[in-house]
Amino acid sequence: MKLKVYADRMSQPSRAVIIFCKVNGIDYEEIKVHISKGQHLTPEFAEINPMKQLPAIADGRFKLFESHAILIYLACAFPGVADHWYPADVFKRSKIHSVLDWHHSNLRRGAAPYVFNTTIAPILGRPLNPQAAAEAEIILSSSLSKLESFWLKGNGRFLLGGNQPSIADLSLVCELMQLEVLDEKDRTRLLGPHKKVQQWIENTRNATNPHFDEVHRVIMLAKERQQHQRLKAAKNEGGSNMKKPLVSRM
Amino acid sequence: MKLKVYADRMSQPSRAVIIFCKVNGIDYEEIKVHISKGQHLTPEFAEINPMKQLPAIADGRFKLFESHAILIYLACAFPGVADHWYPADVFKRSKIHSVLDWHHSNLRRGAAPYVFNTTIAPILGRPLNPQAAAEAEIILSSSLSKLESFWLKGNGRFLLGGNQPSIADLSLVCELMQLEVLDEKDRTRLLGPHKKVQQWIENTRNATNPHFDEVHRVIMLAKERQQHQRLKAAKNEGGSNMKKPLVSRM
Repeated sequence: MKLKVYADRMSQPSRAVIIFCKVNGIDYEEIKVHISKGQHLTPEFAEINPMKQLPAIADGRFKLFESHAILIYLACAFPGVADHWYPADVFKRSKIHSVLDWHHSNLRRGAAPYVFNTTIAPILGRPLNPQAAAEAEIILSSSLSKLESFWLKGNGRFLLGGNQPSIADLSLVCELMQLEVLDEKDRTRLLGPHKKVQQWIENTRNATNPHFDEVHRVIMLAKERQQHQRLKAAKNEGGSNMKKPLVSRM
Repeated sequence: MKLKVYADRMSQPSRAVIIFCKVNGIDYEEIKVHISKGQHLTPEFAEINPMKQLPAIADGRFKLFESHAILIYLACAFPGVADHWYPADVFKRSKIHSVLDWHHSNLRRGAAPYVFNTTIAPILGRPLNPQAAAEAEIILSSSLSKLESFWLKGNGRFLLGGNQPSIADLSLVCELMQLEVLDEKDRTRLLGPHKKVQQWIENTRNATNPHFDEVHRVIMLAKERQQHQRLKAAKNEGGSNMKKPLVSRM
């Protein structure tokens, strides 16, 4: 039975899992679960993931959720996945676990609430929350600095000095790709000081294309809609309300 | 060269790593880094863990931080660790990864800020924050419900229906043990409805004793001090200030 991947490409960990499958030639069926329509909250989806979050997989009768756990499972259970994604060497593998754990409490805790509270919330019928955005920005900025100065130190093209990507590169870069939907000034303010981070995003994109761009198409369309709506709002209001997001069909 | 474990037993992930070493007969040297004295913020400790958090290990020249990553490393790199701690079976192992990932975004995000903002903050010279405590309580209560109804479902004595503990049991139970320092009424309100969770804490304690109790002695002493100070405050103020924590030597 074919692997089932329950995903919404607007969700950054969903994108990481889909790209991983595509890059590694894993035969899978993508089952779209639209968060904006509340499809992750249905009793049917709770049978797959009782935590009602995306992504989740079903491989025959085996069900699994949490994207890092899924990426590790796929790397171990499917033949033909190159070692660099999740090295067998205990020292290299442990460092990848360390990055992935750090991701939970740092980059994810900064990026996701920042984007939600500055941009995405109205699309899901929720108000923007400038205070929550300000708190998230502190965590996000600190995380970007640590990526730049520690996780990307040395001359390697990827995290931990690697010359080929691991599941950690894919997971963290997909997290950062959600910043594309921000107001360009905000995105530049956040990412601008971090040249290594920018280059690493590009390296991970190149290493996983054409799949990376294809899976991120939905984000780029959302970015275009946000830009269009900001321009429209600025035009209507004489440029005084450049940052007001509007509800889109995203 | 002997394994070095940098830890503060007041830190719940530090306790998990120390207990794991003791239970599995891993020869290690415990290097105390006192958070209350700011010793984790020194340039010397940043050489061990640039994120300035505990625990961290040094195994010869190999350095590692993030407690889940450390527990997995120890289970894989040291001979003689029984399989149940971190099973070789890819399905069982993946489920353990899933619990550990869930821990980051749920139980840890509830328990640690709740205890900090109701009890611990003044000990570290910080103010209590009732609003942050209330937000953390929502996450903590939801996490306890999910532990009770999902992760501990079935008749197993441990997470995922196991009859022997894994690194996930040890990590999550150590997280919950910090609730011991709370006002007893708060602790009962939080844990009281969750009988399976209470039994599981006891099962994990029994499976890892006498080490569990020895490593948690510092928490039990802190609990006693908190109780003593609450009684003293209640006596001095006619019972009107039962919940005010006082700065202790913890």
